[in-house]
Amino acid sequence: MSVRYFLYLFFFTLNSIAMAQQRPREAGIPFGVVLTGPANAITDVPGVRVGHTTLIQGDSIRTGVTAILPHGADLYREKVPAAIHLGNGYGKLAGYSQVQELGELETPIVLTNTLAVATGMNALIMACLRDNPGVGSVNAVVGETNDGFLNDIRGRHVTEADVLRAIETATDGPVAEGNVGAGTGTLCFGWKGGIGTASRKLPESLGGYTVGVLVQTNFGGVLNVAGVPVGPLLGEYYWVDELEGKADGSCMIVVATDAPVLSRNLERIAKRAMLGLARTGGIASNGSGDYVIAFSTAEENRIRPGQQGPRTLSELTNGAVSPLFLATIEATEEAIINSLFAAEDMTGHDGHSREALPVEKVLELLRERGVVK
Amino acid sequence: MSVRYFLYLFFFTLNSIAMAQQRPREAGIPFGVVLTGPANAITDVPGVRVGHTTLIQGDSIRTGVTAILPHGADLYREKVPAAIHLGNGYGKLAGYSQVQELGELETPIVLTNTLAVATGMNALIMACLRDNPGVGSVNAVVGETNDGFLNDIRGRHVTEADVLRAIETATDGPVAEGNVGAGTGTLCFGWKGGIGTASRKLPESLGGYTVGVLVQTNFGGVLNVAGVPVGPLLGEYYWVDELEGKADGSCMIVVATDAPVLSRNLERIAKRAMLGLARTGGIASNGSGDYVIAFSTAEENRIRPGQQGPRTLSELTNGAVSPLFLATIEATEEAIINSLFAAEDMTGHDGHSREALPVEKVLELLRERGVVK
Amino acid sequence: MSVRYFLYLFFFTLNSIAMAQQRPREAGIPFGVVLTGPANAITDVPGVRVGHTTLIQGDSIRTGVTAILPHGADLYREKVPAAIHLGNGYGKLAGYSQVQELGELETPIVLTNTLAVATGMNALIMACLRDNPGVGSVNAVVGETNDGFLNDIRGRHVTEADVLRAIETATDGPVAEGNVGAGTGTLCFGWKGGIGTASRKLPESLGGYTVGVLVQTNFGGVLNVAGVPVGPLLGEYYWVDELEGKADGSCMIVVATDAPVLSRNLERIAKRAMLGLARTGGIASNGSGDYVIAFSTAEENRIRPGQQGPRTLSELTNGAVSPLFLATIEATEEAIINSLFAAEDMTGHDGHSREALPVEKVLELLRERGVVK
Amino acid sequence: MSVRYFLYLFFFTLNSIAMAQQRPREAGIPFGVVLTGPANAITDVPGVRVGHTTLIQGDSIRTGVTAILPHGADLYREKVPAAIHLGNGYGKLAGYSQVQELGELETPIVLTNTLAVATGMNALIMACLRDNPGVGSVNAVVGETNDGFLNDIRGRHVTEADVLRAIETATDGPVAEGNVGAGTGTLCFGWKGGIGTASRKLPESLGGYTVGVLVQTNFGGVLNVAGVPVGPLLGEYYWVDELEGKADGSCMIVVATDAPVLSRNLERIAKRAMLGLARTGGIASNGSGDYVIAFSTAEENRIRPGQQGPRTLSELTNGAVSPLFLATIEATEEAIINSLFAAEDMTGHDGHSREALPVEKVLELLRERGVVK
Repeated sequence: MSVRYFLYLFFFTLNSIAMAQQRPREAGIPFGVVLTGPANAITDVPGVRVGHTTLIQGDSIRTGVTAILPHGADLYREKVPAAIHLGNGYGKLAGYSQVQELGELETPIVLTNTLAVATGMNALIMACLRDNPGVGSVNAVVGETNDGFLNDIRGRHVTEADVLRAIETATDGPVAEGNVGAGTGTLCFGWKGGIGTASRKLPESLGGYTVGVLVQTNFGGVLNVAGVPVGPLLGEYYWVDELEGKADGSCMIVVATDAPVLSRNLERIAKRAMLGLARTGGIASNGSGDYVIAFSTAEENRIRPGQQGPRTLSELTNGAVSPLFLATIEATEEAIINSLFAAEDMTGHDGHSREALPVEKVLELLRERGVVK
Repeated sequence: MSVRYFLYLFFFTLNSIAMAQQRPREAGIPFGVVLTGPANAITDVPGVRVGHTTLIQGDSIRTGVTAILPHGADLYREKVPAAIHLGNGYGKLAGYSQVQELGELETPIVLTNTLAVATGMNALIMACLRDNPGVGSVNAVVGETNDGFLNDIRGRHVTEADVLRAIETATDGPVAEGNVGAGTGTLCFGWKGGIGTASRKLPESLGGYTVGVLVQTNFGGVLNVAGVPVGPLLGEYYWVDELEGKADGSCMIVVATDAPVLSRNLERIAKRAMLGLARTGGIASNGSGDYVIAFSTAEENRIRPGQQGPRTLSELTNGAVSPLFLATIEATEEAIINSLFAAEDMTGHDGHSREALPVEKVLELLRERGVVK
Repeated sequence: MSVRYFLYLFFFTLNSIAMAQQRPREAGIPFGVVLTGPANAITDVPGVRVGHTTLIQGDSIRTGVTAILPHGADLYREKVPAAIHLGNGYGKLAGYSQVQELGELETPIVLTNTLAVATGMNALIMACLRDNPGVGSVNAVVGETNDGFLNDIRGRHVTEADVLRAIETATDGPVAEGNVGAGTGTLCFGWKGGIGTASRKLPESLGGYTVGVLVQTNFGGVLNVAGVPVGPLLGEYYWVDELEGKADGSCMIVVATDAPVLSRNLERIAKRAMLGLARTGGIASNGSGDYVIAFSTAEENRIRPGQQGPRTLSELTNGAVSPLFLATIEATEEAIINSLFAAEDMTGHDGHSREALPVEKVLELLRERGVVK
Repeated sequence: MSVRYFLYLFFFTLNSIAMAQQRPREAGIPFGVVLTGPANAITDVPGVRVGHTTLIQGDSIRTGVTAILPHGADLYREKVPAAIHLGNGYGKLAGYSQVQELGELETPIVLTNTLAVATGMNALIMACLRDNPGVGSVNAVVGETNDGFLNDIRGRHVTEADVLRAIETATDGPVAEGNVGAGTGTLCFGWKGGIGTASRKLPESLGGYTVGVLVQTNFGGVLNVAGVPVGPLLGEYYWVDELEGKADGSCMIVVATDAPVLSRNLERIAKRAMLGLARTGGIASNGSGDYVIAFSTAEENRIRPGQQGPRTLSELTNGAVSPLFLATIEATEEAIINSLFAAEDMTGHDGHSREALPVEKVLELLRERGVVK
């Protein structure tokens, strides 16, 4: 356990270093037309917190957990409106049907690897039972992508303690990206994938709302960076899966907003995140489990058990959600590219290794095209 | 463990005794117009197997596992077309999105209690990894209802071994009903619920196909037996949930058929099972997680990993599925009533107890109404 | 035109006579456990209006239009929250996707025959354009069933004026049932079908809300009346469609409530109407287009074009909707049986004729069974 | 009528001229990595035909009809597997629910303006009744976008004859693009929109299948051409709808393939078309009715009324559909850009006018960026 803790500190430091690296926007790459929030992260939505448990041990453990908390209170006692869009349902996301039926989220969102979903559920259930004495039912929401190329996924190394640690160490402020948490061992567009995040803040004339996105990138396609076909230019066509033995992974996308929207419009927002993925060259291939979980943190719409009679809610008109759609698309595109820029080379299970996106070469291509000055 | 094994044998014997009890149809209660299969059980669909692990221990463990296997081979290597209908999605069913996206089932179906879904997943995953060396991803399908009134559900007593035992002991032939497996601690319409099963065999002129249904009954409403309003006649109105403190449980329904139908028509068949539930007085109340999982065992439509190019499939025309709809409705109605007739009084967690449906009184009511001669 | 008007008056009088006939409940048939509203009709929901245009002309025109108006104002300027459930989507309902996407209804609901849907749309569009000068888009909601056995459906005899007349003559108060409006030429369970309606009023302790249902019955199955298998007892098994040449029609169901529920819970309510249909022996056969349109008239949730910023809404908690579910199920069951009791023998197109349900015989069967005293 | 016919010939000639204009690909703009079919049009899928009726009359009629026929035979007697994806359901598409329920298409697909959907339905119904004597039910599929800025949409100038003419004049081979048919009066990204088409042919190693796409573009967003942010570079941000009075239109997308895929995988393919729309900068804004209709022409899967017993079908494995996904995405992107390049300046209703995309300026921007050599 102390070794684990040491490793934790070690990689926490690594993460901090990763953070120090230039993000694409800082390098001059433009993404869309809406301004970002202060940290350009999902945590720009007030109250939202993110925590990572990064497991890099020995030759073959390259995995982890990322937790997203909509607010600082107990989610079970203060649920938030939520919806899930199935971009492509070839995955093991836990919690889908209840979120859709009731339009609410009652646990933190946990992301991890494909074979650790049940571990994530057990951790969320245990924490909920512990903190809520009478409760005998809780809808754990756990997403995943398959990191089995770099990680010994069959070894099932994620523990419930790992999951709880991601939740308990979640903070607001900047979010570590790249080879951290649930993105530790993922691949994307043929390079090393990982965790990425971004945000948008609408102008006051459009409501002034913030939209934040966090992604766990592990999917295929032919990479575009800010419109430049980086994949083809670098000779990387990463889109033919089962037929040519290329893994085609998945993408988990979490969208947070402080706009007062309920489950129907949250589902529409979630649907738009896939349009952001498309801009990066993603194709939602057959084997890609692409899920978008969207929630609203608006205080006035929280759901508290035991409420009686009609509740008073606040909701944007349908016509007012289009700016949130654009914000979601842009933040998703940027979060995905952020994950690639932050990720670093990794060697892992079975001697497999995967290089990071050659950032300098990419910037050069973008400069040649006049995209970066 | 040896104590457990002893208990297992003990309750296996009990189950056999339960089986000896008269089923509603044998008592003369009519259910619909289509004939049953030989065992009037889901196992009438050739190849389908059912196994139970029943956990009745001490004062407060009253739970278990029921496994349904579409055929005798490894499901991962010989997947079957499948679909899931969300009758009411307030539940924790694992595996929904992948079944819907790919139209196939790649594990046995496991039913258990609400807080044991992750345990069920872990067992299915372990078994699949064990038997399929290269595999790093598997879509475990686990359903549940909440037995927390009679069972110490927060104690989380179901183990992976319990799940595996239900799978490994699954057999064809007659299926134990009532307080067994995942139905050990369930409630239904205000009485003791449990596992029930029934089947229908279409006449050769309509294809001669068999439809089998298995249910885990744990839901509310106002009971009808073969059209007779037994609930009101016995003064049991069991339908107002959160507002009056009545638990409203859930119903898991599994539908098997040997008819050559693919996922689209399987989803339509699954939808019809809810019409069978309706005939018993079920209302799919807010808190009821009502899920229907339907699969087809038709040999020619099995999906084997590694298949290349177009597959040749066999599918009934849309117009030919209506008889399967009626068969599903009738078998679901009968399976639910079977579960109530087979269930027995039970005392459990916190001293809670629940009486079985007073079968003799019910039969008397049905005789008075001329429903039973 | 004057002949038409004469016919209109003539059948209006007939309808009034039809109304004079005893409804099943008045004959002592029980339907469920919740009390009805004062008229036991969809119009018990304050503000809701119903209008019929009944077309019975010459040998072969046996069709019509039924319009349901959620309130007395212009729907386009005062939209209501709404949702549609596809019980079985084999039908031509117009307006589905926009209702689902926006969660609102902006025209009256028009029911008619299968080949007159476009006529219904044109009438709704014309009326909306006429009354709303700037408007260039409106989502007409028009449902249908196929009355082609008794009606010369290919002759396409419904006109836009017929549709407008149904809307303009809509009133609150008692609703004509049976061979009127869109139910003029329909068949159900092997007998003459038609329009039926019923309502439920929840006790004040459960909110005191009203649920009203109106149905256009034209579907197959094996009839149950209050739990008594009237179909088999009278030798009428009306469920095998394409294979044996039996038409299997459709059922349109409209559910109104004054409870403050938004589109998500309205869709759940709509889903429950199918459970009411199931209680009558309906099976949603392949060829049956079974659609449920549900809306809420709650004043505080009306949607008015041009609203800016977040709206304040009122919504029942998820837990408080179960009583509305039961009310919907019971009212749907009763509305269907009402349609059969009110319908009368009819001869029409091609010399086809269909007898009404033999009400006296049915009552006798129900008396024998002790269901009616 | 003769004037109409004259106009028809006139614009037919105009169309031919439009065709003569350079398409983006011919100008050197790259779209993706898969090769096109011979005509780079939906008609590259063998058997598929397209017909336009273009209505440009007087000052304010700027509308039309486009018909897409999956094959040359009667669709009702030879239905094709099909599915529809609701990218954003704020539109009036007719025929949705039956296509989804039965997985098949039984009429040509008609595209027109928002207020002409019922006209389109009537034409399809009439043609089906005329050609199929016994038939009393047909599911007309008619999509639309709102051309009310340039066209006097409230005047409702499309006639059934216009619809039939589009169907009857449908041909294979090159397809006229731009201001023709249903695209006559549409707007896109702030410029003149219209009809566009493109195709992809997979290499033989991936099955050799063709995917063809046709679009009716009338939607908002911030335009990207081959990754270059043309919208911002030209100062056109066309994405804020109701709030700032910018119309946000819609996009109809039709996807054809000769690959043997059934409705479930056709729905997945349809979903991917939205990813192609995203690449052009589309955001599926609230007011945008974005629908994708996909069908397969594979001979072996045609559905013929009266078939009995199980049919033998051919279906690609799930794993083999990813290349079709990429083909769909690329063809959709290119078809949208094609529509913009082919469209020309137009003045219409109320003196409104809209300029075409300044193609030369765009090409210059693309040359500056090195996208076009």
